[in-house]
Amino acid sequence: MDHNATAPLRVEARDAMIAAMDVVGNPSSVHGEGRTAKAIVERVRAQVAAAVGCNRAEVVFTSGATEAASMLGLLSAGADVLVDEMSHDALWAHVSMSGLGETPTRGHTLAMGLANGETGLITPAPQKVDGQWSFGETRADWLMLDVTQAVGRIPFAFSWSGADFAVLSGHKFGGPKGVGVLIVRDNVDINPLSVGGGQEMGRRSGTENIIGIAGMGAAIEAAMGDLANGVWDRVEKLRSILETGVEVASKETILVGNDKARIPNTSCLLTPGWKGETQVMAMDLAGFAVSAGSACSSGKVKASRVLLAMGYGQDDAASAIRVSLGPENTEEDVTRFVDVWTDKLERHRNRSA
Amino acid sequence: MDHNATAPLRVEARDAMIAAMDVVGNPSSVHGEGRTAKAIVERVRAQVAAAVGCNRAEVVFTSGATEAASMLGLLSAGADVLVDEMSHDALWAHVSMSGLGETPTRGHTLAMGLANGETGLITPAPQKVDGQWSFGETRADWLMLDVTQAVGRIPFAFSWSGADFAVLSGHKFGGPKGVGVLIVRDNVDINPLSVGGGQEMGRRSGTENIIGIAGMGAAIEAAMGDLANGVWDRVEKLRSILETGVEVASKETILVGNDKARIPNTSCLLTPGWKGETQVMAMDLAGFAVSAGSACSSGKVKASRVLLAMGYGQDDAASAIRVSLGPENTEEDVTRFVDVWTDKLERHRNRSA
Repeated sequence: MDHNATAPLRVEARDAMIAAMDVVGNPSSVHGEGRTAKAIVERVRAQVAAAVGCNRAEVVFTSGATEAASMLGLLSAGADVLVDEMSHDALWAHVSMSGLGETPTRGHTLAMGLANGETGLITPAPQKVDGQWSFGETRADWLMLDVTQAVGRIPFAFSWSGADFAVLSGHKFGGPKGVGVLIVRDNVDINPLSVGGGQEMGRRSGTENIIGIAGMGAAIEAAMGDLANGVWDRVEKLRSILETGVEVASKETILVGNDKARIPNTSCLLTPGWKGETQVMAMDLAGFAVSAGSACSSGKVKASRVLLAMGYGQDDAASAIRVSLGPENTEEDVTRFVDVWTDKLERHRNRSA
Repeated sequence: MDHNATAPLRVEARDAMIAAMDVVGNPSSVHGEGRTAKAIVERVRAQVAAAVGCNRAEVVFTSGATEAASMLGLLSAGADVLVDEMSHDALWAHVSMSGLGETPTRGHTLAMGLANGETGLITPAPQKVDGQWSFGETRADWLMLDVTQAVGRIPFAFSWSGADFAVLSGHKFGGPKGVGVLIVRDNVDINPLSVGGGQEMGRRSGTENIIGIAGMGAAIEAAMGDLANGVWDRVEKLRSILETGVEVASKETILVGNDKARIPNTSCLLTPGWKGETQVMAMDLAGFAVSAGSACSSGKVKASRVLLAMGYGQDDAASAIRVSLGPENTEEDVTRFVDVWTDKLERHRNRSA
């Protein structure tokens, strides 16, 4: 129940990776073995382009969304990167200004998560006004969307988003960890992070992660099939069962953002007075994997920036857990979760009383 | 016969990767699944440390040697990076001065390939003189060794090398492509390229390539076993057979650097008047994968910088091919290679005559 941290490897990805293990060549080599390896990379480029609605030439393979987002910081020397409070730490690392939307702010690039990993909330798409990206009172020349938590779960097409850049990560939709994509709108120059051999049309040097790329391609294709086949509607029903169960068990628990547009699998449960970390450990002992905040910030003892930005206080924010479901979860999983969680809450109340 | 471009995936790596496919967790997650994934990363950190003679904490996982080398360029803002002419393009991309050894030059970091991928030549180790790294008349504060072509083929230990940094790539010793290591001597601060979640002790953010890392660990352990068991002595014998055959067939062919210390598998054959690219294509048609220059510079129509730096002229340098053998090659492979190559050379001579 921690799909927003990572999803299990899809069987299609597994099969594609095992097949790619027998491909010996380096895609930069001109001989037959090299061309076979190159063909895998190009096939996946087409799979990714088809899945996210962009051109093949716009797809740059990276080691994940974090590397892709880090490339953003180098778009141009001294670029102002504006990041909204809902975004992942990987975007925040590059922020040069914040407090978006409130005071008039101008910058080079506006970077936003399309769906927030902690709450599942979908960010309203920024609009282009007079040739500038507009978000509240913020204006920027370029728009970068982090679609990591959205791809495969809600419809998304890069071309109609109008965005200049997007980043995504293979392991969130059933591909392997350590491979991702930066999408760069045609004709936009980027300053590469990794330089050397000139792979990926000079935008990202380094011998390609062939096996990982093969797995990501198979996974994104399968994920798009799932989305079309209504798999996430079923997941959304499971979330409803879970949230209804939690509401019945605990009147004071807040279901963060459940009145707004969310991706279908994520539930952020805020139970004042009961620390999120404590809940995660208690549920782990009972065999449930949930999270307090994003995986990347796990183990760091601080309240969620996202929840603080939404107006929750320090103590309330620290009492949140994230339950993020996937197609593998069953109705039994979520009813058992509610039972065990209710039991743990009861014990917590008795200890506190 | 293009092992310096990439080696076949070892069976040990394949098995470790398939096992890692069943590990669902994100290593940053604190629950049981997360800890299982984290345990793989830490086990491989120990395998790498044991193989290259460094401390575990000095191992930073990257997406390959190119990314690791790119981190070098960011060691400190405005650092002068000095690169010798024998080094890979991934080092050259960061060069701020060249012409090492000839004129007195001082810089921040001296970056060198321990073994050259095109010729196999082993670089004499720089010495520390009065607290500074010394190479000819060049002096630098820090030393970075690119050991990509050396690890698993000749003995190497980071600790006794005295170097401050080293980079290596998993796919050159039978691990998967797209995973590598930056070794950072204890207590040296680096400016990370990828920032965000704070993985790898903040030195390289991004969810780890678990499957790739697992494969690299198994491969480096197996590679060290092969080295200890004399596998590369057999490869060196194959190279002797090949070079003897070439010498007999073609008096004018130069075996570049065969009187100097080389890694045991690499032969650089320079046949004046017969273009390397032509030879590569002819041999590819006959089922042999060899290379003109490094894989990363393949397809780029220019003579090897390495050979030019060694004093060969443009035309001679453009007539080189690299044959790089591996443990999978047999005596039959090399004798067949010599036969076919001799036949192609004969035809070339007839056409030119």
